[in-house]
Amino acid sequence: MEPIKTTNFELYDVVIANEPEELKDFAYVELEGWVRTNRDNGSIGFIEFNDGTYFKNVQLVYNNESKNHDILSSLNTGSAIRVLGKLVLTPENKQPFEIQVTDCELEGDVAEDYPLQKKRHSFEFLREIAHVRPRANTFQAVFRVRSVLSFAIHQFFQERGFIYVHTPLITTNDGEGAGNVFDVVTHDTKDPNSFYGRKVNLTVTGQLHVEPFALAFRDVYTFGPAFRAEHSNTVRHASEFWMVEPEMAFADLNDNMDVIEDCVKYCINYVLAACPEEMNFFNTMIDTTLFDRLTHVANSKFERMTYTRGIELLQEAVKNGHKFDNNKIEWGMDLQSEHERYLTEEVIKGPLFLTDYPKEIKAFYMRQNDDGKTVAACDLLVPAVGELVGGSQREERYDLLKQKMEELGNAEELAWYLDTRRYGGCRHSGFGIGFDRLLMYVTGMQNIRDVQPYPRTSGSIKY
Amino acid sequence: MEPIKTTNFELYDVVIANEPEELKDFAYVELEGWVRTNRDNGSIGFIEFNDGTYFKNVQLVYNNESKNHDILSSLNTGSAIRVLGKLVLTPENKQPFEIQVTDCELEGDVAEDYPLQKKRHSFEFLREIAHVRPRANTFQAVFRVRSVLSFAIHQFFQERGFIYVHTPLITTNDGEGAGNVFDVVTHDTKDPNSFYGRKVNLTVTGQLHVEPFALAFRDVYTFGPAFRAEHSNTVRHASEFWMVEPEMAFADLNDNMDVIEDCVKYCINYVLAACPEEMNFFNTMIDTTLFDRLTHVANSKFERMTYTRGIELLQEAVKNGHKFDNNKIEWGMDLQSEHERYLTEEVIKGPLFLTDYPKEIKAFYMRQNDDGKTVAACDLLVPAVGELVGGSQREERYDLLKQKMEELGNAEELAWYLDTRRYGGCRHSGFGIGFDRLLMYVTGMQNIRDVQPYPRTSGSIKY
Repeated sequence: MEPIKTTNFELYDVVIANEPEELKDFAYVELEGWVRTNRDNGSIGFIEFNDGTYFKNVQLVYNNESKNHDILSSLNTGSAIRVLGKLVLTPENKQPFEIQVTDCELEGDVAEDYPLQKKRHSFEFLREIAHVRPRANTFQAVFRVRSVLSFAIHQFFQERGFIYVHTPLITTNDGEGAGNVFDVVTHDTKDPNSFYGRKVNLTVTGQLHVEPFALAFRDVYTFGPAFRAEHSNTVRHASEFWMVEPEMAFADLNDNMDVIEDCVKYCINYVLAACPEEMNFFNTMIDTTLFDRLTHVANSKFERMTYTRGIELLQEAVKNGHKFDNNKIEWGMDLQSEHERYLTEEVIKGPLFLTDYPKEIKAFYMRQNDDGKTVAACDLLVPAVGELVGGSQREERYDLLKQKMEELGNAEELAWYLDTRRYGGCRHSGFGIGFDRLLMYVTGMQNIRDVQPYPRTSGSIKY
Repeated sequence: MEPIKTTNFELYDVVIANEPEELKDFAYVELEGWVRTNRDNGSIGFIEFNDGTYFKNVQLVYNNESKNHDILSSLNTGSAIRVLGKLVLTPENKQPFEIQVTDCELEGDVAEDYPLQKKRHSFEFLREIAHVRPRANTFQAVFRVRSVLSFAIHQFFQERGFIYVHTPLITTNDGEGAGNVFDVVTHDTKDPNSFYGRKVNLTVTGQLHVEPFALAFRDVYTFGPAFRAEHSNTVRHASEFWMVEPEMAFADLNDNMDVIEDCVKYCINYVLAACPEEMNFFNTMIDTTLFDRLTHVANSKFERMTYTRGIELLQEAVKNGHKFDNNKIEWGMDLQSEHERYLTEEVIKGPLFLTDYPKEIKAFYMRQNDDGKTVAACDLLVPAVGELVGGSQREERYDLLKQKMEELGNAEELAWYLDTRRYGGCRHSGFGIGFDRLLMYVTGMQNIRDVQPYPRTSGSIKY
């Protein structure tokens, strides 16, 4: 009888479906993957086996009658093996099935210095072995959810007819003008900028480049890397990260908030449905409030409140004795995370759009409101985190935008951007999601270094 | 009666479905988008209208009874408008329906220097106005197909359980060691490499970083930007481009070729099905052999032939009088496009995997064959283009890989990569698709500058 080549994922699928005919086809199986643990009691041995296709291990059982018993009994954690065996249902046990091994081949042994052992390792330690940590439980879960969440983003926008635009990474401008950019040069020592004939840097945002596409396709989005050369050594900052930046023509700030709300809910529901094992792991091992937090947001109507009203509420809170680290609340200030969290956690007890911020603390391209003091911006605040998404209606009025850009000094540099306001411009809006932070939010992971495959942070680069 | 807000896409959808009940809902519509052309005969006027949601225009018809007739009759190409009107089926006309305008608002006018006029513009000219060209027909088609093809790639791999990995863009190694990298520095004039504490550059490939993930998840892929600081001023070279790099554990060269074949066929069929209007445009206006070429490949069994056999056939061709620009065919040479095309177009007359290349002309990580002279590489050659995909089985044997890397001088730098061969390594394979070139292949576009939103090529950067 020929064995059927299969995987952890397929085996769980077949056993749970429990169709007798299909199960018959899987009576004799071949698996290839890695040993998580191996304990040999002498008469009987057990291997926790995983081939990376599913979060759950498959239990391999062997005894003296298994061929190559000597190989089986000496397998170390991490070895790559090929096994043949019989599928046996074990409905009374913790695992719904096991594989009774008939034969085994060692495909790749592990050296003695293999750093992943049975014991629990700290995230700090695992960060130092980024090439091995994807095999650890937590990172199996993190990186599968990262992949699924990426696809959820694409699916959300593609289903709604948005066009995916690959905005450039190497660019001549620095977006919002914050100045913390990485420069891109070549080895030409006489003129490191000779390749393009001018100074270039890594992009901080794709927004300026994607806006012209919204004026051609109506609804568009970017999803790609962005860079900031900031020496912010926090758990939420990385110098390289992925951003999602949708942009919609003929959309105002309210339309924008509608799409943000739909998008966040879609992502949460998608991941909960597509990754039940992984999400259960996070809810058990990483953050026991995770499910409550996510389902609460997915089932809430997102509230909307102006920045000005938010300031009033914060001032009232201070008057009533609430203590913030920064207790001096004044209109015009940039809110700290503690203030944002107070509003979303204590006042609203749910997701909250704060809108219409003072123009001085927001980017030049945001649309000025009729009051002359605020701009049509919206930040989505959620409990336990604070800001999750930031967006705005863009300034479509040529004269107002030009004046702002001249003040900022980028009107000449970005003449093409300004021109879009003279070439059939229209009201339009967009937003930005820091993808890595969204992933942290959805998994409960607390450090951005633990949700990126090879994190890039100030002072540190190994791979 | 309230108008229903709708789009070009939805209108064509509703009219073609022709459900009387649904059509009734669309009797009175509101549209927002841009004027492509406007001609006013005095008593009656016609606007070709497009809102970016669909390749085909909607015809707006107006007359003296339309409100704001003065606005309508003076609308210029490119203006953004909002119109209200009645949907009228016109089954006898070229367009299956038209909108009889009752009212119109000008949302955004166009300045006199608006560069897109009714006449046909050259691609060279349009490249200079990358912020406006997405509104031109050809680029509406190119960038919609780019988006759809991107999604097809994701869907192909996600459906098959592959994990999407965001490999880093900033890295310390230069992949295959070709040396043409962009360096990444900061403004710190004392030490431009101080940010990470060492010299870093932009990635040329995600492969080395994604291999460890294949050893954890079995099947994985990257899809992201890569960079080459090459002064190759050809129609197929850009310094910034997007790459798809799948990697599969427990897969040999034949498994690899199976996946490449499935993937290429899937992408072709997906785009043909999802973008009929755009593909029809390309087949009519850009390359009249396109449909034949694509359907031929989608319906062919991809042949497999060794490099050595390919050399023999090329030598025979020369003997029989075939003239290549480079007519000196010897084993060991790197094949030129003319040679590749001869094999796929003249010999096989269809898609062809050329396999088992001389090790000297291939990358260090490719698996050495038992002959000691060749490596388990495969290049997919297709008619009209030549190489479309390149892949290989990777060298999983520690000693052999170490020796090669020591010869190349990157064994120390890439110690972590080498270590994966000591930590439960296994046979594995992968490939790389230059996404922009795949898009050129699928659309018939001849210049990589015309399939990238903002092309980055040597000597040129404007945006």
